[in-house]
Amino acid sequence: MRLYDFHESGNGYKVRLLLSQLGIPHERVERDILKGETRTPTFLAKNPNGRIPLLELDDGTRLAESNAILFFLARGTDVLPEDRLAQAQVLQWMFFEQYSHEPYVAVVRFWHFAGLAEEKQDEIPARMERGYQALGVMERHLAGQDFFVGGRYSIADIALYAYTHVAEEGRFELARFPRIQAWLARVAAQPGHVPITEL
Amino acid sequence: MRLYDFHESGNGYKVRLLLSQLGIPHERVERDILKGETRTPTFLAKNPNGRIPLLELDDGTRLAESNAILFFLARGTDVLPEDRLAQAQVLQWMFFEQYSHEPYVAVVRFWHFAGLAEEKQDEIPARMERGYQALGVMERHLAGQDFFVGGRYSIADIALYAYTHVAEEGRFELARFPRIQAWLARVAAQPGHVPITEL
Repeated sequence: MRLYDFHESGNGYKVRLLLSQLGIPHERVERDILKGETRTPTFLAKNPNGRIPLLELDDGTRLAESNAILFFLARGTDVLPEDRLAQAQVLQWMFFEQYSHEPYVAVVRFWHFAGLAEEKQDEIPARMERGYQALGVMERHLAGQDFFVGGRYSIADIALYAYTHVAEEGRFELARFPRIQAWLARVAAQPGHVPITEL
Repeated sequence: MRLYDFHESGNGYKVRLLLSQLGIPHERVERDILKGETRTPTFLAKNPNGRIPLLELDDGTRLAESNAILFFLARGTDVLPEDRLAQAQVLQWMFFEQYSHEPYVAVVRFWHFAGLAEEKQDEIPARMERGYQALGVMERHLAGQDFFVGGRYSIADIALYAYTHVAEEGRFELARFPRIQAWLARVAAQPGHVPITEL
């Protein structure tokens, strides 16, 4: 299979990390979002929503949305419980991540990374407040449990780890969140873990 | 089971609609988000993210995030394919809905509904542009197919229907999207369909 990806993307990293942990061979194709490489007619023909990551199977079938790709790859493995309620709880945290976490924690990091922090300075405080709210929800949930669902490492942890562990690149202070810090260390200690810097 | 809900919420409506179509008995508890009723200590103890819909099972277990609730309720029924790829494609459209559609189509509608259109007037044009982009992605995908995944009505259609069918309340012009209009009519013609106005 082939993964269309962008190195600095946490959404792309989620998929790279899981592919590594599951030992799934794949080809990685870089598409630089800063150069508009996901908005070309060729790429839009592959994903009309113009985003990476995009997974292309050997038969040409394509799957978009990082968390849907995680779910696809994880089915039948240890990182996705089969139980109906537990599986829905994994999805609950993945939808939380895309709706209440990524638009704040990831977007502020992106603005710094892309040199837009000055241009966006009026928007950053409100985004950071929402980001801190999301981190606060995570911190409370981690009271007395090692991972997000059922006490076991799952794709819910991968989805939330991707942008949380680089939140300081968006100037978020993770020192305020001791349980999150301990959980980040547990995730990083999982077999087959690879850092976001490794391709 | 018990559904914490807010009448005007499209996210709440998704769950009401599926509960109706599956014939699942439930108690509905209104929580007015305009009055801050999802931010009280009592409600935050139930859902630390302070949002409806929230599903409470008879044993007290709670599940948040509208699309995770849909997935939970739909498992093993006709509105969620069991096939691994098709199930991931359903999730792809549900993550698209929460990330690329709801923050624009739903939020602009909410501002009008809540009397905030004037206060938010500087933000509305950019939100509407992104909303139209999402509607454009949907319009293209519906070329030659009746529903979003595998030619069959699924929870992907329910998730996208919820805010698309009331997009005009946010001043979006659906007349620009003939395929979406035909799809809305197909969704509304499904057995057990209930309108958003019905509780």
